[in-house]
Amino acid sequence: MPGRLHCNMVTEAIIVGVGAEQGLGAAVARRFAREGHRVLVAGRTMDKLAAVVEGITAAGGTAEAIVADATDSLEIARLFDRAADPEIVVFNAGVNIRTPFRDISVETFEEAWRTNTLGGFVVGREAARRLVPKGRGTLIFTGATASLRGAANFAAFASAKAGLRAIAQSAARELGPLGLHVAHAVIDGGIDGERLRQRRPERVAAAGEDGLLNTDAIAEAYWQLHRQHRSAWTLELDLRPYKETF
Amino acid sequence: MPGRLHCNMVTEAIIVGVGAEQGLGAAVARRFAREGHRVLVAGRTMDKLAAVVEGITAAGGTAEAIVADATDSLEIARLFDRAADPEIVVFNAGVNIRTPFRDISVETFEEAWRTNTLGGFVVGREAARRLVPKGRGTLIFTGATASLRGAANFAAFASAKAGLRAIAQSAARELGPLGLHVAHAVIDGGIDGERLRQRRPERVAAAGEDGLLNTDAIAEAYWQLHRQHRSAWTLELDLRPYKETF
Amino acid sequence: MPGRLHCNMVTEAIIVGVGAEQGLGAAVARRFAREGHRVLVAGRTMDKLAAVVEGITAAGGTAEAIVADATDSLEIARLFDRAADPEIVVFNAGVNIRTPFRDISVETFEEAWRTNTLGGFVVGREAARRLVPKGRGTLIFTGATASLRGAANFAAFASAKAGLRAIAQSAARELGPLGLHVAHAVIDGGIDGERLRQRRPERVAAAGEDGLLNTDAIAEAYWQLHRQHRSAWTLELDLRPYKETF
Amino acid sequence: MPGRLHCNMVTEAIIVGVGAEQGLGAAVARRFAREGHRVLVAGRTMDKLAAVVEGITAAGGTAEAIVADATDSLEIARLFDRAADPEIVVFNAGVNIRTPFRDISVETFEEAWRTNTLGGFVVGREAARRLVPKGRGTLIFTGATASLRGAANFAAFASAKAGLRAIAQSAARELGPLGLHVAHAVIDGGIDGERLRQRRPERVAAAGEDGLLNTDAIAEAYWQLHRQHRSAWTLELDLRPYKETF
Repeated sequence: MPGRLHCNMVTEAIIVGVGAEQGLGAAVARRFAREGHRVLVAGRTMDKLAAVVEGITAAGGTAEAIVADATDSLEIARLFDRAADPEIVVFNAGVNIRTPFRDISVETFEEAWRTNTLGGFVVGREAARRLVPKGRGTLIFTGATASLRGAANFAAFASAKAGLRAIAQSAARELGPLGLHVAHAVIDGGIDGERLRQRRPERVAAAGEDGLLNTDAIAEAYWQLHRQHRSAWTLELDLRPYKETF
Repeated sequence: MPGRLHCNMVTEAIIVGVGAEQGLGAAVARRFAREGHRVLVAGRTMDKLAAVVEGITAAGGTAEAIVADATDSLEIARLFDRAADPEIVVFNAGVNIRTPFRDISVETFEEAWRTNTLGGFVVGREAARRLVPKGRGTLIFTGATASLRGAANFAAFASAKAGLRAIAQSAARELGPLGLHVAHAVIDGGIDGERLRQRRPERVAAAGEDGLLNTDAIAEAYWQLHRQHRSAWTLELDLRPYKETF
Repeated sequence: MPGRLHCNMVTEAIIVGVGAEQGLGAAVARRFAREGHRVLVAGRTMDKLAAVVEGITAAGGTAEAIVADATDSLEIARLFDRAADPEIVVFNAGVNIRTPFRDISVETFEEAWRTNTLGGFVVGREAARRLVPKGRGTLIFTGATASLRGAANFAAFASAKAGLRAIAQSAARELGPLGLHVAHAVIDGGIDGERLRQRRPERVAAAGEDGLLNTDAIAEAYWQLHRQHRSAWTLELDLRPYKETF
Repeated sequence: MPGRLHCNMVTEAIIVGVGAEQGLGAAVARRFAREGHRVLVAGRTMDKLAAVVEGITAAGGTAEAIVADATDSLEIARLFDRAADPEIVVFNAGVNIRTPFRDISVETFEEAWRTNTLGGFVVGREAARRLVPKGRGTLIFTGATASLRGAANFAAFASAKAGLRAIAQSAARELGPLGLHVAHAVIDGGIDGERLRQRRPERVAAAGEDGLLNTDAIAEAYWQLHRQHRSAWTLELDLRPYKETF
């Protein structure tokens, strides 16, 4: 199996949906930076992005922070314009919503779709436009338990996440033969990041050691997806803590 | 198994997504009308709705035509207001789209979601609000092959239909125990209706006898879903022609 | 949609896996007998079969009891020889097993496969051999929650039931175009039959009204599967009590 | 994320289902040997096993060849007895069968189950018995397209492979919380190994570069599964050539 020999110069990883340093987006950015990729970290809050870039730079990596709205195709096009040779794109934006079905407002339902699905489409389409002509690259979508299963009180979130998964499937079938590796990771469990630690400390405590998904462990899985030889690509894998009930 | 004894007076079936008389929505409306339900047929084009109502009335049934935009919660609320005792709600609106991934516009992607997914949510939520308090009723969503699988060139449609399916799952898990039977029918094949006959006559010819889904046969399946005893409800079934490759 | 016009004379329904009168096999037999089919009820215990036949006969139907081992192809061939014009075949045999993974003996694992899977293959193959040449007929397999999901402590049962489901899928894809309607029903919940009532009365009590699957309701679903027009066949449906958590 | 610090001494990888050096089993054995694991390669033909061991030894690794029948629990117990500290177990045995449904003999159906399913159970159970008490280890099952989908003419193979997948699911749910990482790899495409090259050279030619699954690429995926941190384990991933239609 010949290795990937095309990495003569620096290529970029574009991570969309980067928030706090403790979050998944930041961990993914660090992982790709560690391998020598220049990383473009995109998110909504410059303070958070700047902190992530600072951390990467301090560790010897190269990174740039760009505030961008994933649902705005012009902003996303401009984000990609910052990359000379983008090779990896990760769509990690998302917002979970738990509401009884009859109480979900149209606004909430639409917002769930915009953030989780439309953003994924816009980013994925731009990635396809930039990477397919080069005949190589990786596009990874962050999914969730809800991507596969609509649970009670999660209609808005599950609908959005299932919609994102279908995008990954269609793009994989269409663009895989053109050299773009499209993958969808089903994160099945709580992520040990800023969100849970701040909002649900009792759940973090109850999970015990390794009972929540370590962001570096997820990032490692994303890196391995990127490294897969094109003769054996994965479209979908699940990731969950060893003690998770499922 | 005791029968359903609550039908002392006329109850309504509300069918959203009714177009031509040859289409699925009309067939479903006719089927429920035949069983004595008053049928509210809702769609975008009054001429078509009127023709459907005329057919039902001529056959001895009771029906009313209402132009309504399924994505507009006010219009849908008004539609339901026309029913004294709604018992069955069918969401049958939908539009298929086939476009290469990189060519899908944000407008097209959003339109696919609005028609197929948001409309389903709005109608489903209204159905839940009206039927759950009564502790009984049936809510059926029309799905497609794409509900389960994102094929090449169908990212917009598959994303929307997968999103609709997740709504059905969440609603079923949440509202089933409250007495609302939520079901999702995966229509896996071409429907022998006006759309295919007008746009792809060659496909209709190639399909041969019973090679496309008969709308009355689908409507029968919907009726049987409604008739299921609550001790044995179906959330999902597939429907396809006997000779369909899958 | 033209009706099925081929029922000029009596045709047979063969139900394999019939036990107590309160069980599912018996309910299915009664349902098909009620529609005028001569029913061959096959199982392991003549006393039970005789009681089922007696009940059907008393209700004006026609039935015959045959002791047969579903895993023995000769016995199954002889069973089918008793039918002049078999049209419906239901494979309903099965045995559930709950054992921790490390404690499952090879004998238990094999027995689970023989009863649930091999029996289904033998019966299904014989059905295919007899019905396909006529170009019509229905073959229904009774599945379970475990058909779709291997739960903890259920490796033997889930392996066997998943294996049965795959048979149904292969047979449907291969023989549907030849006129044989193959279907697989996922029974997702406890059946309100003799087994649960005898072995787990506390579960029956806890389930409450319609909290377990009524055997007549399942039988009705099987009958409706048989009645489906060949332009809109179902391969798989789930059946569960309205209050079941899933 | 702390690394795995328990590898103070040599641990074993046991690969069951090793044939020709060009096959998947051999590639997996080489991959684990390269990481310093002592590898026990088990299969049916000593000549082939000896060649694999020779290759590993020549490359500086440590390996031992053991002829064993995966369906024989005594032989498998003896195989595991040869390991001082087994840490990874891969079940890679399997035989594909393509036969029209009505022509499948009971013997063929049973043989497919014995090789693909029963063998997996016996090996998996022994792995569980040996690894769970240590609270760590990896158990990987090789699956196929047929694990998920029963295609026409593949009832025997699909039934067996679906049955194997269910074992993996049950074992994962039951033993994951006890520290055993159970994974199932869906190999979706032809493997570029001895079997295809000998039996279907025309398919190999038609596949083109990287159009078949490279065995080293699959082996790499298995290695990465083993390396996953227990906070983010994968139960299932698919692997297919970039140009595979699916």
